[in-house]
Amino acid sequence: MIAQTNSFTIATRGKGTYDITEQVREFVATSGVRDGIVTVFVQHTSASLVIFENADPTARADLHSFFERLVPEDGKGYTHTAEGPDDMTSHLRMVLTRTSEVIPVSNGELCLGTWQGIYLFEHRRQPYTRSIVLNVLGD
Amino acid sequence: MIAQTNSFTIATRGKGTYDITEQVREFVATSGVRDGIVTVFVQHTSASLVIFENADPTARADLHSFFERLVPEDGKGYTHTAEGPDDMTSHLRMVLTRTSEVIPVSNGELCLGTWQGIYLFEHRRQPYTRSIVLNVLGD
Amino acid sequence: MIAQTNSFTIATRGKGTYDITEQVREFVATSGVRDGIVTVFVQHTSASLVIFENADPTARADLHSFFERLVPEDGKGYTHTAEGPDDMTSHLRMVLTRTSEVIPVSNGELCLGTWQGIYLFEHRRQPYTRSIVLNVLGD
Repeated sequence: MIAQTNSFTIATRGKGTYDITEQVREFVATSGVRDGIVTVFVQHTSASLVIFENADPTARADLHSFFERLVPEDGKGYTHTAEGPDDMTSHLRMVLTRTSEVIPVSNGELCLGTWQGIYLFEHRRQPYTRSIVLNVLGD
Repeated sequence: MIAQTNSFTIATRGKGTYDITEQVREFVATSGVRDGIVTVFVQHTSASLVIFENADPTARADLHSFFERLVPEDGKGYTHTAEGPDDMTSHLRMVLTRTSEVIPVSNGELCLGTWQGIYLFEHRRQPYTRSIVLNVLGD
Repeated sequence: MIAQTNSFTIATRGKGTYDITEQVREFVATSGVRDGIVTVFVQHTSASLVIFENADPTARADLHSFFERLVPEDGKGYTHTAEGPDDMTSHLRMVLTRTSEVIPVSNGELCLGTWQGIYLFEHRRQPYTRSIVLNVLGD
């Protein structure tokens, strides 16, 4: 049984989704795990994770604009605003998506469907260095 | 330590929730794992997973109608519409629920609460064959 | 390889977020696991889990009021109302957040970011005893 933990960073350039599938795939491949699970964990409360449609960029554009409507940056109803209008909304958009994703591994491969990619969802306007922890457990 | 992966399919007949608790329970029972975790993973971006109230069907009916209101199929604000008005909304409803659920296993049993069932949440109108991967890890 | 399961209860005093980070940290510390993952699982369908900003209480207050707006207790659109206006809304607020959270463990420590706390999110008005299951897997 193998238990391995590692981490990497992503430099974000404003709000949007950043594909991290390859980093996860490579981590699993080098671990030697054939059957098990990989956990992806983002160490922030203003960025999150989603597994999302990876083929048509318009789907991701619609995702971004949907969250602008669902959690509007109009300042209404927020008191935690010290860091600007995208401060509290970032925490809320994070809470409606994921801090961790767990993906089964079989025959050394991620069990993702054809159209599934793993994305970091950045909710802040400014550039950030985001830290992601990976753990793989299995045989 | 046991690490086992398997998969099964569900034939959906339109939007709604489909109980998959028994398939997960049976997988864990036959694995022989006494203490550990089971990961349930759906390999699609227009269907998702929820752990939900399993006693009163009106709760699930209200769940379905709430998502119709929260992510309306009115075509407004979506550009990714090649497959119809339930295309982009399916991705958004998926992203607001789960791609994976992880459930502890103790004494060979799923640690679900009395009123918890595991459901596939289908967001498309047409019938689909949905693929779900299961992994169990433990002693 | 270690696989350990345990559970504890939290007495809630109405709607809001309750910090359970210390209970998870202590469970991992006493397990002896150095590298692996810890799964936190809430056995209810009207309470949920979030990993959230742990420094400024106004962020949590804004979280609470956002969910009042997103899933209003105005009785509109709900048929599952036997237990009052906070019955169906509790299931919906649960479904939009998490039943389980999985956190990597490295060098015997939870891999939480500086500002991340683990919270039980209670959605009912009345006091409840909430049961949370913990599982740790690793070396």
